[in-house]
Amino acid sequence: MSAEDWLKNSIMAKRALAKGATGTTHGLTIEQQGGFHYVYGPYAKPTLSIDPGGVVVVETEDAFGGVITSESDSPTAKLNFPYLNPQCGPIAVKGAKKGDCLAVYIRDVETRGAQPAGTTCIIPEFGGLVGTAATAMLNPPLPERVKKLHVDRNGVRWNDKITLPYEPFIGTIGVSPEIEAISSLQPDYHGGNMDLPDVAPGAIIYFPVHTEGGLLYVGDCHATQGDGELSGVAMEQRATVTLQIDLIKNWSFAWPRLETRDFIMTIGSARPLEDAARIAYRELVRWMAADYGFDEIDAYMLLSQAGRMRLGNMVDPKYTMGASILKNYLKA
Amino acid sequence: MSAEDWLKNSIMAKRALAKGATGTTHGLTIEQQGGFHYVYGPYAKPTLSIDPGGVVVVETEDAFGGVITSESDSPTAKLNFPYLNPQCGPIAVKGAKKGDCLAVYIRDVETRGAQPAGTTCIIPEFGGLVGTAATAMLNPPLPERVKKLHVDRNGVRWNDKITLPYEPFIGTIGVSPEIEAISSLQPDYHGGNMDLPDVAPGAIIYFPVHTEGGLLYVGDCHATQGDGELSGVAMEQRATVTLQIDLIKNWSFAWPRLETRDFIMTIGSARPLEDAARIAYRELVRWMAADYGFDEIDAYMLLSQAGRMRLGNMVDPKYTMGASILKNYLKA
Amino acid sequence: MSAEDWLKNSIMAKRALAKGATGTTHGLTIEQQGGFHYVYGPYAKPTLSIDPGGVVVVETEDAFGGVITSESDSPTAKLNFPYLNPQCGPIAVKGAKKGDCLAVYIRDVETRGAQPAGTTCIIPEFGGLVGTAATAMLNPPLPERVKKLHVDRNGVRWNDKITLPYEPFIGTIGVSPEIEAISSLQPDYHGGNMDLPDVAPGAIIYFPVHTEGGLLYVGDCHATQGDGELSGVAMEQRATVTLQIDLIKNWSFAWPRLETRDFIMTIGSARPLEDAARIAYRELVRWMAADYGFDEIDAYMLLSQAGRMRLGNMVDPKYTMGASILKNYLKA
Amino acid sequence: MSAEDWLKNSIMAKRALAKGATGTTHGLTIEQQGGFHYVYGPYAKPTLSIDPGGVVVVETEDAFGGVITSESDSPTAKLNFPYLNPQCGPIAVKGAKKGDCLAVYIRDVETRGAQPAGTTCIIPEFGGLVGTAATAMLNPPLPERVKKLHVDRNGVRWNDKITLPYEPFIGTIGVSPEIEAISSLQPDYHGGNMDLPDVAPGAIIYFPVHTEGGLLYVGDCHATQGDGELSGVAMEQRATVTLQIDLIKNWSFAWPRLETRDFIMTIGSARPLEDAARIAYRELVRWMAADYGFDEIDAYMLLSQAGRMRLGNMVDPKYTMGASILKNYLKA
Repeated sequence: MSAEDWLKNSIMAKRALAKGATGTTHGLTIEQQGGFHYVYGPYAKPTLSIDPGGVVVVETEDAFGGVITSESDSPTAKLNFPYLNPQCGPIAVKGAKKGDCLAVYIRDVETRGAQPAGTTCIIPEFGGLVGTAATAMLNPPLPERVKKLHVDRNGVRWNDKITLPYEPFIGTIGVSPEIEAISSLQPDYHGGNMDLPDVAPGAIIYFPVHTEGGLLYVGDCHATQGDGELSGVAMEQRATVTLQIDLIKNWSFAWPRLETRDFIMTIGSARPLEDAARIAYRELVRWMAADYGFDEIDAYMLLSQAGRMRLGNMVDPKYTMGASILKNYLKA
Repeated sequence: MSAEDWLKNSIMAKRALAKGATGTTHGLTIEQQGGFHYVYGPYAKPTLSIDPGGVVVVETEDAFGGVITSESDSPTAKLNFPYLNPQCGPIAVKGAKKGDCLAVYIRDVETRGAQPAGTTCIIPEFGGLVGTAATAMLNPPLPERVKKLHVDRNGVRWNDKITLPYEPFIGTIGVSPEIEAISSLQPDYHGGNMDLPDVAPGAIIYFPVHTEGGLLYVGDCHATQGDGELSGVAMEQRATVTLQIDLIKNWSFAWPRLETRDFIMTIGSARPLEDAARIAYRELVRWMAADYGFDEIDAYMLLSQAGRMRLGNMVDPKYTMGASILKNYLKA
Repeated sequence: MSAEDWLKNSIMAKRALAKGATGTTHGLTIEQQGGFHYVYGPYAKPTLSIDPGGVVVVETEDAFGGVITSESDSPTAKLNFPYLNPQCGPIAVKGAKKGDCLAVYIRDVETRGAQPAGTTCIIPEFGGLVGTAATAMLNPPLPERVKKLHVDRNGVRWNDKITLPYEPFIGTIGVSPEIEAISSLQPDYHGGNMDLPDVAPGAIIYFPVHTEGGLLYVGDCHATQGDGELSGVAMEQRATVTLQIDLIKNWSFAWPRLETRDFIMTIGSARPLEDAARIAYRELVRWMAADYGFDEIDAYMLLSQAGRMRLGNMVDPKYTMGASILKNYLKA
Repeated sequence: MSAEDWLKNSIMAKRALAKGATGTTHGLTIEQQGGFHYVYGPYAKPTLSIDPGGVVVVETEDAFGGVITSESDSPTAKLNFPYLNPQCGPIAVKGAKKGDCLAVYIRDVETRGAQPAGTTCIIPEFGGLVGTAATAMLNPPLPERVKKLHVDRNGVRWNDKITLPYEPFIGTIGVSPEIEAISSLQPDYHGGNMDLPDVAPGAIIYFPVHTEGGLLYVGDCHATQGDGELSGVAMEQRATVTLQIDLIKNWSFAWPRLETRDFIMTIGSARPLEDAARIAYRELVRWMAADYGFDEIDAYMLLSQAGRMRLGNMVDPKYTMGASILKNYLKA
């Protein structure tokens, strides 16, 4: 089965209005976007309104808004909180209403812009192994440090000896809450800054719709990232993101879901980290019960033997984990 | 020293534009308010714009929007998430800009409306000793239960044998974030649903201003509450709240602060609970260092001997704690 | 009612074998103790075996084993992990068996030894606002610092301007687990290093018995301490502790309980801090149901209005909180 | 490179006394073991004392002590806390002293005993999606349920449609603390009940030695397990475990480490879960700095791009995570 073949049997193909078929392609360049957004909310006008099945080719800015241009830059001096992690969109999907679900098939994430195209850095009081605004400490911070690296489809050149594979994904993507406007630095039930490497080309991510049109935002692509995004910063890059966006009517659930050829995944974001894991696994139990015929307790017992858990981030305002099970095991 | 005398030496009196003097009194009735707000954000128009020192007498709705009218009501059936915890305001303070601080002296919180004026209840999947949306469990929920109780200045009649003292406070109060619109169910750096019993008549609470006018919201008064608001619900009541609102220019800090005759307090909201405690205590260390001449390490060591910690809530989207030290000990 | 009068109506007086009456007084001096213990477990021989009602006057060493003798000492150089927090005992109570309960009335905690009798300090990688062995960080540690202070019944002389009240209590006390030997640095279901200021003269603390004789250990007295023991170190002192130890047959529960004239308290120790709070409050709900006639849900709802929570420590291997309710409200 | 070839270049081969060569083989049958142990501590006599390089073939009991023999058994009725998770050993390694390290190469874990050889179940108040003794709730517990399944090298027959692969590992293994006796239900710095699927045939696990002889305990084998051991119970089995045990002099570190052909891993156990992750990642940073020439900040930044995190358990008294990096990237 090719990477594409499974799509014909995906949930998107089976349940969405366009049946997974590709509609009109739309561009959303930096120029077309105009200003970026720094919250996920219903208070912004759509930059684009598309039919179910439409493809959108979005140019995204990096998480720093592109201001870290040299290894001698000071992140503290350059970054202007809360105007971080600029987001494109929102993209409205015609006919989407509260109680529906957006299906977003990620076709591609391509590095954009001049080399060195990848940036990572140490930002004081931010990261997984330092005191932060929330895990407040009196210790002195780590010194700032910036790395600018060559990134392309052949890999991320960490240094002369190490090239990491190019394993791109979308760090921040989601839909608008009903009434909240949530910082683009935060992941939550609406998606947002999940920093979960499974949100990658080849996957379909499903978001429950909370407001008219769904209002999809996207930004913050990574060329690669370790589990947890330990220092708080991945291999940040500007990117060209190709999304195919479909609409499933009357499919509602609490947290984002994801499908690949091999597995289904539920995504939870919370603190402490065990609560992110609990959310993800409970959603998976509920999904297995609702759509695959499992008794809840049997699903729970099976996941105890065969569930898989991916750590997305352990650095953002909420931590993110993705719980998954192979499709092979979805036989109650 | 009378309850009022200390005010003359309060931070508000010393640093605010109106020097703690009482300005014009404004009413903000339910009718004047019109629709309520369910987020703290900059996207709503002020219902009132006042000069520093102005007094506002606000009629607040209870956290349920008044829909639980009988002990036989089902909270699940009556409550319409996310339209919970209705807030009055926002009140703009003329001249308030980012980098300034609102000083809000709480003059009174009086029970409002017909008896039984107090309501508490069990809401499934909400509370400190049950599985919730965040601490996701598979256990069956507790049964719903509603109590409607007589509440007045003489106390809360729990049953024939127990009358709890009337110790009212404001459960939810705060200012607008700069760009976020945060659910009125959530406490955070802007204040909001802190459910901290120290936010009571006789205290001054200080909020850093994030947006033009400050935009103060208020609601959700409690006739009494235990530490932690264990079941998720206090003795909820409609109230008439009297606030005196002053403006301190160029006083900026990260989290709400509070002052009474006897102590100063810093308020942190986070999960897990130790992070709320860390935020609160670090803010107190910083305040002692910035304004009272302490070396940070000395402040830290002194708080280890003399700091006090109040548990506000352990049930909301973030948990709240207040760290305090007696003014008597503010001698570096 | 004098401080002593309530004892006649205490649970100890009503249910214990000696009915709260004072039996033989035993001394347990440093010399009699011989070597100290650094674990709470069943593998040590009792230093003393007493009848229910017996009084023991124990000389305790400070938490450092007395090795920090000057403000120029380096805690890192002087302290020899895991030989910290030396404990006296164990004291066996004749007839105590698994399923019973030791009632320990704390009669007095008196400062012992030459002045300056109080010690506090900064220990690198230990404390509530720094990275630690468990909340592992890469930040540089804080510098070491030692304070040696004059302590007596009149107070703790913090500096020329501040004298803190002498509010002594026992930082570490508890019984042996059945098969575990738990570090004296750790609090848990057996008691241990709870660092909870309510474990003070005038209170009775109740421990479930896990092993023959109960095996009570005690040490680590504090002249005063703030909520949370923020820096990880209280006002540590050598002390003479007077305990009256009684035995309640067939009273078994999961976590330590405490009684004063005015309230009953349950004590939980866990991480994260909300789990300590949950343990404490659930134990209190269960106690109210078992012994005071409450329906569990009613107890839960009442604690939401009238429960009180004390933060003991937020620095030890497990954090400790004490949940309490006034005896006045124990009327179902 | 065959599975075995990498061993010649393993840390064990390079640094251990027997250079990874196989010494005398010892049996440790259930009969030879006699009584089991339920704590990891220095208070038990070794059942076996071996030279570095010795191989031990251990028969282990399942985590229930073999008492759950039928799907109609009640775990609550059969299990006798704290006498759970029986451990074999301790095995002393001649010459091992505090400051050294045991290298334990796991050669095989083979299912033992009559079919159905695998057991899993629901135990009330235990598991990742239910209230527990630590995350104390008032919700009613889940009903008990037992599954007894056929397990052999061909797989775990979950039901007629699903056979899970046989991916066995050791749930509980470790060394004695210096003075503590830690429940065999708990993982910690000494190893113990980590329930981490990487502790599997083909891996070498390294334990810092805390006491004379090291005192290795082992038990609790699983035929397979999902990330997190969600219900609290894996596919529990009796097993025959083949271990090759070597000794590295003067290699000391804080938490267990693991090596496979492809990666090195550090293992942390703590609550909340982020603290387990922090411990694991900090240990990995330190290992990369100490033995592979990395600057600590560079290691931290590289792990942010290339670190991998495995969730072991989210159900035991401490949660366990393993942080790893590919050997290919260990080039500073």
